[in-house]
Amino acid sequence: MSYVKFTWLFKHIFSVVSGNIFTPEGVTDVVNIAILGFGTVGSGVAEVMAENAQSIAHNAAEEIGVRYIVDIRDFPDSPFADKLIRDFDIVENDPEVRIVVETIGGVGKAYEFTKRALLAGKSVVTSNKELVAAHGHELLEIARRKNVNYLFEASVGGGIPIIRPITQCLTANEIDEIYGILNGTTNYILTRMITDGAPFEEILKDAQRLGYAEADPTADVEGYDAARKICILADLCFGRSVDPEKISVEGISGVTLEDVEYARRLGYKLKLLGRAYKLADGRITAYVAPHLISKTSLLSNVDGVMNGIVVHGNALGECMFYGAGAGKRPTASAVVADVIDAVKHLKARKYLGWEESEPGYLVDANDVPMRWYLRTGSGLEAIGRAFGDVRLISYPGDYPGAGPEEYAFATPSLTGRELEEKCAGMDIRSRFRIL
Amino acid sequence: MSYVKFTWLFKHIFSVVSGNIFTPEGVTDVVNIAILGFGTVGSGVAEVMAENAQSIAHNAAEEIGVRYIVDIRDFPDSPFADKLIRDFDIVENDPEVRIVVETIGGVGKAYEFTKRALLAGKSVVTSNKELVAAHGHELLEIARRKNVNYLFEASVGGGIPIIRPITQCLTANEIDEIYGILNGTTNYILTRMITDGAPFEEILKDAQRLGYAEADPTADVEGYDAARKICILADLCFGRSVDPEKISVEGISGVTLEDVEYARRLGYKLKLLGRAYKLADGRITAYVAPHLISKTSLLSNVDGVMNGIVVHGNALGECMFYGAGAGKRPTASAVVADVIDAVKHLKARKYLGWEESEPGYLVDANDVPMRWYLRTGSGLEAIGRAFGDVRLISYPGDYPGAGPEEYAFATPSLTGRELEEKCAGMDIRSRFRIL
Repeated sequence: MSYVKFTWLFKHIFSVVSGNIFTPEGVTDVVNIAILGFGTVGSGVAEVMAENAQSIAHNAAEEIGVRYIVDIRDFPDSPFADKLIRDFDIVENDPEVRIVVETIGGVGKAYEFTKRALLAGKSVVTSNKELVAAHGHELLEIARRKNVNYLFEASVGGGIPIIRPITQCLTANEIDEIYGILNGTTNYILTRMITDGAPFEEILKDAQRLGYAEADPTADVEGYDAARKICILADLCFGRSVDPEKISVEGISGVTLEDVEYARRLGYKLKLLGRAYKLADGRITAYVAPHLISKTSLLSNVDGVMNGIVVHGNALGECMFYGAGAGKRPTASAVVADVIDAVKHLKARKYLGWEESEPGYLVDANDVPMRWYLRTGSGLEAIGRAFGDVRLISYPGDYPGAGPEEYAFATPSLTGRELEEKCAGMDIRSRFRIL
Repeated sequence: MSYVKFTWLFKHIFSVVSGNIFTPEGVTDVVNIAILGFGTVGSGVAEVMAENAQSIAHNAAEEIGVRYIVDIRDFPDSPFADKLIRDFDIVENDPEVRIVVETIGGVGKAYEFTKRALLAGKSVVTSNKELVAAHGHELLEIARRKNVNYLFEASVGGGIPIIRPITQCLTANEIDEIYGILNGTTNYILTRMITDGAPFEEILKDAQRLGYAEADPTADVEGYDAARKICILADLCFGRSVDPEKISVEGISGVTLEDVEYARRLGYKLKLLGRAYKLADGRITAYVAPHLISKTSLLSNVDGVMNGIVVHGNALGECMFYGAGAGKRPTASAVVADVIDAVKHLKARKYLGWEESEPGYLVDANDVPMRWYLRTGSGLEAIGRAFGDVRLISYPGDYPGAGPEEYAFATPSLTGRELEEKCAGMDIRSRFRIL
């Protein structure tokens, strides 16, 4: 075998198995990326890449260049106008584009382009929680087969480092629980309900005016956004796919100022949590719902648009990650960190992935016992018949906003279904979990 | 060239350049490690490795075995007694030991053995903040030359993931500031002074009884432990070595109950912080000192033995990492995560390191302006002469514990040296920074 042939074979195998070490022939020294979608996150990525170019190149140990930005819209005044193209085919067919940043969102074009990019042997980095939650298992599997990476740090907690800490820093632990404030819009609304004493609808309007809530706030307010995120976290922590369509999801539109006040009297605050944990038999439950959480907990002090995520491992105990859960630059910060990691691992696989779900793995949150806060228009006789001698936290007429005949109290530990049976025939006005 | 020779050459080169992919000949399938020091952390590492063996092997994609535990003491009743040896030479000369866990502590034997292990081509994982702070630059340089890894996630924040988030998740950011509660012992003492209203000495004794403080508490109480940690964080965030011997360090033994009360009146809490940040001219400052921090900040709610670390990046904004900053199992959690990472990167380098310091890089914290809290036995005339019309937060006789003639107030922004000049001749009883 001639030296030249040997060298060629060696480099060729090398570039397939661990292309992060040698640059394959024909590829320039700059690692080229393409950004799909020039919306809030996509333009943030372009900006941060330009602004911190020097330190990014230092951290990646390579220069990184944005070769294309794909969007169907025109941005003639953008400083990146010369990079803008409309046709994804160009990206797909350009072998010099090694990494694709998908910030389109949703599960339409984003899904299609992600698959095509991975199949073309490009790593993909995304902030698209909907896509990761719905098709993460499949896309990671394609990435594995093609020996490239599919990275999504920005899909949960915006700029907060959480995916990588779970998959790289807590690897010595069996993780038994993860929960947190995963949606900034709802946390902003609940925080202002608590501090300002103004009702949900009023603060929602404020949040829309300030850009913290979208014109159609359903995905945030009704908990669907948080559901996608807790499913991604459950996938990673517990190793099997959890479908956001199959978990119990409750938003915050039913939270009233009476609830805020009664929670306060108990020493609690109302927060929307996504939560997933292992049951004693190894199965898991996951759900999104408003919770009363103790004011002595650090999480209860995560206010406004900020997010906080608590992880519990059997060696570490509890730790918490806190930061901006959304926003242009924080999200771009996480996306670009993934780009840097993808550059360092060109053609070398990061250890990321989970199994498909299996029947019986996910337990409905309504079948798991927990304590409940109840607010009811039914009288003491009905309460006593259903729950025995509970400790009341409010009495008729002692809060100006409440109806003339209204009680609030906390129940002992019960499943959601047991609670429903006990409450049959009662006038239940609010019903929230207590953490 | 014969096939056999080619295969040998190929595997040989491969095992040198990227030994994480193929197992070199002569090495069993189990990756063997040795633990140096069977104290609290070392025994915790052995326990967590045994307890979570299955998930650890899954996460590392390799089986990991503890081959030796080196300690000069005997542990006949330990379940790991059969692994215990006294002689480090055996570890050094055993090519099958690929990773050495150093949990001896200090800069004596730990320094010597770490160097020898790295020079023998073994990766080293440690929880030894003193060694990393004092000799990290040199040891990382040896690791780089030998193409192995020196990892120290456990050296700061115990089990809290912080080193890896900084070096891998915040890589898109220019980090401009890092600070936090880095020592659990002092945070426990300050927290109990605030909640119980008992003086420093009394709570220190309690902490010693409960195992939260050592018999000789100097390193914790006087801030030296926190100093090592903030220097390691500054090394990583700003890229140049900061010597803990050269930064300003003040502990908590001067904090009185009067200070706690006056801080409360201002809406602040007293916390011992390690802090490092970039100045406008690119130089940095680093120091350890008690601070008054606002009760509205999340960090002020990090209580008891817990630690919290705040990082500020130009893209991400602020994020915080919270968890147990010490303790057998939390620290072991971080050490074992590094072992898993070292297994995944056998002979492939992690990107970790910093430059040597250079003259003028570190600015003395006393030359940087900040606001101060002062408690003084001097009267209004002296205060007015030195500081003008400051807002007083206490008056003579209005707090039972205080002297008959005592004032407390906050100053405008001043350097420590300017403060000292202004206070010349005054009876200053306490003097703390305000964050």
